[in-house]
Amino acid sequence: MYIAVMGYGTVGSGVVEVFLKNHESIVKRSSQSELELKYILDLRDFPDDPNKDIFIKDFNIILNDDDVKIVVETMGGLHPAFEFVSALLKAGKSVVSSNKELVAAKGYELLTLAEENNVNFLFEASVGGGIPIIRPITQCLAANEIDEIAGILNGTTNFILTMMIEKNMSFEDALKLAQENGYAEKDPTADIEGYDACRKICILASLCFGKHVYPDSVHTEGISKITLSDVEYVNRLGGVIKLIGRAKRVPGRKIAAIVSPCVVMAHSQLANVSDVFNAILVRGDAIGDVVFYGRGAGKLPTASAVVADVIDCAKHAKRKKLFGWGESEPNYVIDYKQLETSLYVRAEAGDRDAAIGQVESVFPNAKIILPDSSVKNEFAFVTDVETEAALNEKLGGIENISVQSVIRVTDY
Amino acid sequence: MYIAVMGYGTVGSGVVEVFLKNHESIVKRSSQSELELKYILDLRDFPDDPNKDIFIKDFNIILNDDDVKIVVETMGGLHPAFEFVSALLKAGKSVVSSNKELVAAKGYELLTLAEENNVNFLFEASVGGGIPIIRPITQCLAANEIDEIAGILNGTTNFILTMMIEKNMSFEDALKLAQENGYAEKDPTADIEGYDACRKICILASLCFGKHVYPDSVHTEGISKITLSDVEYVNRLGGVIKLIGRAKRVPGRKIAAIVSPCVVMAHSQLANVSDVFNAILVRGDAIGDVVFYGRGAGKLPTASAVVADVIDCAKHAKRKKLFGWGESEPNYVIDYKQLETSLYVRAEAGDRDAAIGQVESVFPNAKIILPDSSVKNEFAFVTDVETEAALNEKLGGIENISVQSVIRVTDY
Repeated sequence: MYIAVMGYGTVGSGVVEVFLKNHESIVKRSSQSELELKYILDLRDFPDDPNKDIFIKDFNIILNDDDVKIVVETMGGLHPAFEFVSALLKAGKSVVSSNKELVAAKGYELLTLAEENNVNFLFEASVGGGIPIIRPITQCLAANEIDEIAGILNGTTNFILTMMIEKNMSFEDALKLAQENGYAEKDPTADIEGYDACRKICILASLCFGKHVYPDSVHTEGISKITLSDVEYVNRLGGVIKLIGRAKRVPGRKIAAIVSPCVVMAHSQLANVSDVFNAILVRGDAIGDVVFYGRGAGKLPTASAVVADVIDCAKHAKRKKLFGWGESEPNYVIDYKQLETSLYVRAEAGDRDAAIGQVESVFPNAKIILPDSSVKNEFAFVTDVETEAALNEKLGGIENISVQSVIRVTDY
Repeated sequence: MYIAVMGYGTVGSGVVEVFLKNHESIVKRSSQSELELKYILDLRDFPDDPNKDIFIKDFNIILNDDDVKIVVETMGGLHPAFEFVSALLKAGKSVVSSNKELVAAKGYELLTLAEENNVNFLFEASVGGGIPIIRPITQCLAANEIDEIAGILNGTTNFILTMMIEKNMSFEDALKLAQENGYAEKDPTADIEGYDACRKICILASLCFGKHVYPDSVHTEGISKITLSDVEYVNRLGGVIKLIGRAKRVPGRKIAAIVSPCVVMAHSQLANVSDVFNAILVRGDAIGDVVFYGRGAGKLPTASAVVADVIDCAKHAKRKKLFGWGESEPNYVIDYKQLETSLYVRAEAGDRDAAIGQVESVFPNAKIILPDSSVKNEFAFVTDVETEAALNEKLGGIENISVQSVIRVTDY
């Protein structure tokens, strides 16, 4: 059996590296007598690469080669990845993708195509890098009704927040360091504004709750407005600020889904996840909370997830993998302001004592956090739990405070 | 398709509960038109149970019923579970077991029987309760060579240690509380002496490294000798004491495997695992460290893992699941004293300053930990990294100290 790899960037070259390095045991585990790499598709030239003899530039060579049964798509981006993957599935080839943009936008469509053509479309590497998450959700937790899924899904922002929390670096300095370390791209928008995390929570929510969740239906906030002042207040509260993507079953066969910075209390399994690591919490009705932790990105971890999917495709060439990922539905994701939460609020006030009195009359269970004694005109507080819409209305009614920042507080 | 459950204790009754509660989605996920519970085997009477009509006491009814294709074994213990499971596999029925004693002792034998008879023997629930671990190791991490696996595998001892660490309770009081809460049995030996954790690390090591590892080949120490004094010194060091089962690939195609209390430093993902929770760390050559966290025991979490295996058996009735779990080999597990480690040592000394000088001359990189100032004749230290045999010899050469306790220090 032959495979091909499309896209020889970080992940694609990692796939080739892992595949060749552990080739003997990979062939054994795939229950095939042979499993060989036949082509690498990339428009660039790699004259010094040890695999230079198998590079090609014409996609049709792969498409028309009947010996190639499994194709790895590590090109990234929506086009032409979508057209290529569609054509391959229609040609009866299984496809393994690490491309979260593709899966988040076209997952239902591609899974349907795979089913119609009796092949597999697998994408374990699209969420959480090498962390096993898609197979555990769809197989190991199959006896559960999943109620909620939440996670630290983006390593770049987690690195930046970790530097802010542990090294007292400003957001700008931490971002610069992330870029110097190769953790953030030159244009970091997709990471820091939460778009990357949004794609991943869409994939997870689609798998957990059974209907395609599109990124544009998920309210998304990034971390660029987080200040060291908030980091410090939240530290006094006994928590840390993390960028969390989450999705939750709500009454009426709908879900809530949101990506935003959140206050996570120190005892949480998500609080201790530092640097570029990711962690995903799944809450099931039988299992309770389960957490999966590991490297959410990087060449070899991500490649390891891709190759595991290749092994799966090879081993079960004739068996379709069904994910129960159905078509989307209008208004399936509710307005995030209808989700119940409590909020951390930082505010300035000329007369702080009076303002705190007002806060306590509006939120009887509010927890007040004072800064160090040198700061006189500022404080923070954590509200009761209500819908965000109701909380906003109450907040708007508190006179003589100037709200500086508002961050949701998670309950896990 | 019909299933039967053998053993209606905590886990068995949980399996029935989860199976009936989420029945509709379980049938759907199993890709069967129907999946029904036909028998519950238990020698006891359950006259008030809602399922009382399907209780039986004769194993042969299940064995001889051709409609029953999948049997759940939640009886526990080695006999007659082994004889029953063997007979069922030979009769062409798939078996799902939560019985770690059975899997640790007879895993290779039963997997071979299953393969010969073209059925499945699955046991996700035997390690880590509901935490998905066996499928992730064998499938998701299939592209990796696993170098090491380590975990907090026993909830009872982790609860006891948590109470000692967080509430300053003595071992005896914490054990009593565990018994009152139903976390520890009346005879707690299997838990507190590490035998339960030993069975689990044997199962994990057999899966990760490919040869059956028997419990009697694994050096096992429990937590009954841990004192509050050690808890306090380790806290000063910046760590916690956890009961860790671990197995590691070593040169010569052999492995090291051991169960013992270990000092785990605070930054570790295993340090923050409290109460009855379990966590398992897997270190692979491509993925790096991955950690799986959740409830390692309990009725519904464990049942959820059993039912997931049932779904898998039903879905893939004709496909054998191969685990690559081979026969054992003499001297496959090396003497634990040949494994490199560093040690935490607590010692009494009449002349403490002189003793510390001696320690520092024997272990140039030793980290010394002093107790609070009221204690004059005691201290603790952490040694360099060497084989335990070499460390013991050096320790024996330090005159005028009386070693009170020795605990291994992990590097994760």
